[in-house]
Amino acid sequence: MRIDLSRAVLADNDALADATRQALTAAGVLCVGLLSSPGAGKTTLLEATADAWDDPSRLAVIVGDVATEADADRLRRKGIPSVQINTLHHGATCHLAAEPVAAALATLELGNTDILFVENVGNLVCPVGFRLGEHQRVVLISVAEGADKPTKYPKAVLETDLALITKVDLAPYVDVSYEDLERSVRQVRPQAAMLGLSTRTGEGMDAWLDWLRARRAEVTG
Amino acid sequence: MRIDLSRAVLADNDALADATRQALTAAGVLCVGLLSSPGAGKTTLLEATADAWDDPSRLAVIVGDVATEADADRLRRKGIPSVQINTLHHGATCHLAAEPVAAALATLELGNTDILFVENVGNLVCPVGFRLGEHQRVVLISVAEGADKPTKYPKAVLETDLALITKVDLAPYVDVSYEDLERSVRQVRPQAAMLGLSTRTGEGMDAWLDWLRARRAEVTG
Repeated sequence: MRIDLSRAVLADNDALADATRQALTAAGVLCVGLLSSPGAGKTTLLEATADAWDDPSRLAVIVGDVATEADADRLRRKGIPSVQINTLHHGATCHLAAEPVAAALATLELGNTDILFVENVGNLVCPVGFRLGEHQRVVLISVAEGADKPTKYPKAVLETDLALITKVDLAPYVDVSYEDLERSVRQVRPQAAMLGLSTRTGEGMDAWLDWLRARRAEVTG
Repeated sequence: MRIDLSRAVLADNDALADATRQALTAAGVLCVGLLSSPGAGKTTLLEATADAWDDPSRLAVIVGDVATEADADRLRRKGIPSVQINTLHHGATCHLAAEPVAAALATLELGNTDILFVENVGNLVCPVGFRLGEHQRVVLISVAEGADKPTKYPKAVLETDLALITKVDLAPYVDVSYEDLERSVRQVRPQAAMLGLSTRTGEGMDAWLDWLRARRAEVTG
């Protein structure tokens, strides 16, 4: 016998996520969710964003991992106030949910925050279905993962707002280009917003920062 | 209210996985499970294994993906009998389970099979807890994912039999070496069995094939 409570759990989750997003909007804070496979470069992107931001203490991060405080430690070293959630202690280990994110939010001082990033567990499947209160959701896909991930994990593209192709400096060594991934993303979602970047070379960082500033302007009006 | 059936579901799953493994042992077929992040190179490894095997029709693959028949198609082109499972149609989308694998197994002619590979959905979290009937489980970790994945996803190392470090040809371009990953794996599990390889250069393929032959000899006695 199977009892499927997933619909009810998701409804609760989404209601809390809506409340979180409304509170962040009222506080003038843009909330950006990041999801990807393990090792696509979410934390490294946030480190590079901190380096480029006028004042990294005006950014904040809630970061989910199955285990370790490693990512929050890396981000604190960049001057970003960061809260680590270990999903090992929160039921489902494979994704963040609105409840632990709301609890983590309560520990952050957001008065002078421009952008709150929520970095999910590395996983292209489970995090997609759980809204956390983000205004924008970004899926990172590294060229090193191959060109077929968008078609094999279609919801990760269909239910996010920006497909960010990372590690484009590796393209010559893996025979997968930004254009290959563009074709694969557009096969799933013809009008998808896309950017490519390499934190190693800095290519594409300006467009990413412009995208963030434009999304923040939408929230602060 | 939460009703937790996960323990009961896992017990059923494990009983079926045990029966599957016993049937494969009786048939003289080694069953090797592959799990990894999306894009660590599971399908590419199987293509390279087919190229190096005396007769690729003596291999077989059951491959799980959320969507598409792409991987089974790639493997059939290499002469490996392959069955695709799309987890979109099997409840949990983020991992294979013993039941669909047993059903797929019933469609394969295994009389002349040396090794059955079961390639899981790309995911370092969810597949770990679900045995499928494998004699051996291999976790693939690409150097392009960074050195910290073993410590951040410890169960993927603790509950598998071999940590296979892939794409070692990319090491100079990502500043992550086999040795970096060895340190990270041994931090979680000091005695872990490990190999490194690159299907692009062929480095390490002989050791991988030797490992497979030795594990097969254990099953066929």
